[in-house]
Amino acid sequence: MAAIPESALAAWRLLLGPARVLTAGAELARYAASTSANPVQPLAVLRPESHGEVVAIVRSAGEFDIPLYPLSTGRNWGYGDACPTGEGQVILDLGGMNRILEVNAELAYAVLEPGVTQAQLAGHLAQLNLPLWMDCTGAGPDTSLVGNILERGFGHTPYGNRMLHVSGMRLVLSSGDTLETGFGHFSHATAAHIYPYGVGPWLDGLFTQSNFGIVTSLGLWLMPRSEVVSHAIASVAGFEDIAQVVDALRPLRMDGTLRSVVHIGNDLRVLSGGMVFPQALAPDGPPLTQSVLAALRKRSGIGAWTVSAALYGRKAQVADARRAIRRAIGKLARLQFLDDRALALGGAAARTLGDSALGRKLSAQVALGRSLLNMNRGLPDGRFLSGAYWRRRGGLPQGFPDGADPARDGCGMMWLAPVLPMRGSDLLQVHSLAAPLFARHRFDLFATYSMVNERSLGGVLTICFDKEDAAETVRAHDCYGAVFERLMAEGYIPYRVGPQSMAALDNGHDSYWRTVARIKAALDPQHLIAPGRYEPR
Amino acid sequence: MAAIPESALAAWRLLLGPARVLTAGAELARYAASTSANPVQPLAVLRPESHGEVVAIVRSAGEFDIPLYPLSTGRNWGYGDACPTGEGQVILDLGGMNRILEVNAELAYAVLEPGVTQAQLAGHLAQLNLPLWMDCTGAGPDTSLVGNILERGFGHTPYGNRMLHVSGMRLVLSSGDTLETGFGHFSHATAAHIYPYGVGPWLDGLFTQSNFGIVTSLGLWLMPRSEVVSHAIASVAGFEDIAQVVDALRPLRMDGTLRSVVHIGNDLRVLSGGMVFPQALAPDGPPLTQSVLAALRKRSGIGAWTVSAALYGRKAQVADARRAIRRAIGKLARLQFLDDRALALGGAAARTLGDSALGRKLSAQVALGRSLLNMNRGLPDGRFLSGAYWRRRGGLPQGFPDGADPARDGCGMMWLAPVLPMRGSDLLQVHSLAAPLFARHRFDLFATYSMVNERSLGGVLTICFDKEDAAETVRAHDCYGAVFERLMAEGYIPYRVGPQSMAALDNGHDSYWRTVARIKAALDPQHLIAPGRYEPR
Repeated sequence: MAAIPESALAAWRLLLGPARVLTAGAELARYAASTSANPVQPLAVLRPESHGEVVAIVRSAGEFDIPLYPLSTGRNWGYGDACPTGEGQVILDLGGMNRILEVNAELAYAVLEPGVTQAQLAGHLAQLNLPLWMDCTGAGPDTSLVGNILERGFGHTPYGNRMLHVSGMRLVLSSGDTLETGFGHFSHATAAHIYPYGVGPWLDGLFTQSNFGIVTSLGLWLMPRSEVVSHAIASVAGFEDIAQVVDALRPLRMDGTLRSVVHIGNDLRVLSGGMVFPQALAPDGPPLTQSVLAALRKRSGIGAWTVSAALYGRKAQVADARRAIRRAIGKLARLQFLDDRALALGGAAARTLGDSALGRKLSAQVALGRSLLNMNRGLPDGRFLSGAYWRRRGGLPQGFPDGADPARDGCGMMWLAPVLPMRGSDLLQVHSLAAPLFARHRFDLFATYSMVNERSLGGVLTICFDKEDAAETVRAHDCYGAVFERLMAEGYIPYRVGPQSMAALDNGHDSYWRTVARIKAALDPQHLIAPGRYEPR
Repeated sequence: MAAIPESALAAWRLLLGPARVLTAGAELARYAASTSANPVQPLAVLRPESHGEVVAIVRSAGEFDIPLYPLSTGRNWGYGDACPTGEGQVILDLGGMNRILEVNAELAYAVLEPGVTQAQLAGHLAQLNLPLWMDCTGAGPDTSLVGNILERGFGHTPYGNRMLHVSGMRLVLSSGDTLETGFGHFSHATAAHIYPYGVGPWLDGLFTQSNFGIVTSLGLWLMPRSEVVSHAIASVAGFEDIAQVVDALRPLRMDGTLRSVVHIGNDLRVLSGGMVFPQALAPDGPPLTQSVLAALRKRSGIGAWTVSAALYGRKAQVADARRAIRRAIGKLARLQFLDDRALALGGAAARTLGDSALGRKLSAQVALGRSLLNMNRGLPDGRFLSGAYWRRRGGLPQGFPDGADPARDGCGMMWLAPVLPMRGSDLLQVHSLAAPLFARHRFDLFATYSMVNERSLGGVLTICFDKEDAAETVRAHDCYGAVFERLMAEGYIPYRVGPQSMAALDNGHDSYWRTVARIKAALDPQHLIAPGRYEPR
């Protein structure tokens, strides 16, 4: 590993001031912390606070020939966290660029820098008292919106297919040039943040899951506040019962009755929201046996699968959507609808029951429902991070979810994210490919399948492991590799990967990756920006 | 202009057979016909019928160093038609590649070659009796779906933002390499046509409005058939009254009540659907005076502006949408709803009235309503092309709209397509910038503003001129240039342009176009594919 030239550090200290150039071992180690236990130490960390500073850093990095690894807040949990793609890189931490540059109430968009967090934008909209909501993911309040979008993440609302709600990026290219996409590069453009494509080639997609440029701001569309929000929860008892439900819901997702991203979680996915691995029930460690799982399902009153979908609209629209859902799956699943009124009633009942077992259970359910409805309205909640702590020694940290950070809290977790056709048979197929491999490697299988658009499911299979157990960590990586390979072979390709899998995306004869390499060479001939990131060759 | 080497023609004749290599003057002239009266003659026309033939042609074009200008059906009316971007190019006419490669009924998509026309896909879906509809434009039955999508055109339905309903392109690059976007390049990929982005940089946008590759097929999503279709028609009497209507409809477009592309046409846009320029009323030629226009509006029972919007869904959804529209604009506009029942009643009444003036008027209105409802269901109709014939000597051709082809029929027409924020004030502003320039150059101003997404209006301002009148033709070009320049200066940038405006998109200091040029050099260093197309430098 090459050391960093003192002259480069001196130049950056001059530019940013010494406090925003991090080189101390302990500071760098914080960035190298990773849930996947593949820590990669950066050479240094630079913390610019403006587009101009990014331009200056990129220019000097070119002079010193030091690659930069840009990150927003570095909370890419399960997919490599803040870790650079390789040794010898300097992290460009854009977390200090956290201005909300514009909010347009009339046309419902905001222009954000990469450091703007979910909590920050939600708070800002609340403070302005605007009838606008943002889309929210379950990754918690402190995660970056821009970072997630550039990884093509998904949220929970009708704006959950986040890629489709971006208009107008501003970037720094490796030449130091500033690039504005869409109409933004025309002077006085009136439609830069409301019409994404501009005129000429539409470039935005090029700067997602790539290393072609450094995004320093983008326009993000906001949802108009909805008169009614209702949350449908459906559960099925048996494992295979979910297939029919998927097939029955597909037409409703396709015809716009279900406009939000519908999430389908297995029992463990739901259970892990309220507990960590129950060592007392399974002294030999994971996986939990079927009988323990059955007992836990029974205790929590959940089924093998839980479907969660938010409904938005005027009263009549939501009522009609409820009827349509009931017609479609009322006989296939246990179905209930949460809304503010139901939660208020539940809360009152819980208070009446007081500190009894039933009272506590109801109270917890009401709190969960409240969190779900908040998410639907764009209010982030850290509680959905708890699954990451499943195998953590010591369980959830004090004060969870405040300040929760699975990477720095020492959680072991890796995500596999295959995309599949929105068909019950494909869901069962993916599950039946993965389950034996999880079992063989002795891990519990957490699974979510989300209706990320009208035709496909985005799967997230989670491997949780005890990072302090070296053997379990090795097994986790083996398990990940085996499942990854098996799913790829069957045509279930991931929508997103961590650095450990980027090389495996190319079979060596793929003209797609050859094309990507050509574009990289044209835009960043010196390979200054995140070399190796979504760049298998 | 360089002549084409005989060896190249010989090679192509060997490859395609002589019948698919066109070199005769009359044949080439057909391709050079253009509504904008800037005909550019190709050197030759090649008509491949398969992806493999395209690969072979591209390879040989590289050897002979002859640029290719690909087109689908060549019906890019108002934006240059089939004309190459410059002299010395060979047209690659993909019209013969017109296979519907796949229709997936369950996941609702089709895979199309570039030659597949609107009528062809609509007919195919009807023949299969599938509960699926395609999105339709008003450009008529014989236009290419792929061609329109690659120009980022818009239709009329909830799938009218066509760019968002494409998944998985197959292309030939100038190297002769085949590129599959999305997941398509992975073997056995199950989600190639249902999840557009794939993993790694999302490249699809790069191949729209560009010259980086030749698309030989793409996956297009189809709409599920809707239980109810209703068509809202609203009209306002006064010119400025439209502003409030736009502002009142914006929240409904944004909250998903209006999911389809809403079109707002001015009086002339509507009138030109049923007549050509009334020489008798205006012997000095265009523009029509305000008093003649007022009389025509009165005769046809239309206002200064007409809003046209399709509603889809179950009965309760459509009923709720109607109520919401009525609440929003019921007091601002004259509002009516068309549906099959209303048309059946209207048709019966027209038959009762028989061949009276009133009967004929009603009968024409019912026919128009039927065409609109058909378009909403993806059945193309040539009647919406009639506006192009406004200034054509001899008016509409015999048998119109069968086989209508404004370019070959000698129509003079150019389109200006500024994008503007979806606000009444912006619509009035664009109109007030354009109107005096149209008047000064003595042209009627046809205008449509379409709610192409939830936040912006796509304007189409049409200049119709008599191509047989040399002076009027010069004036038309002057008018086009003046309006183009004025709108650009005020930040109303076009979403799409004809070849005459591509150079004007770059001020010479724009890093966007510099980036585009770098990508072009990387993917097509020999400038083999459509040189100059959306490539100002």
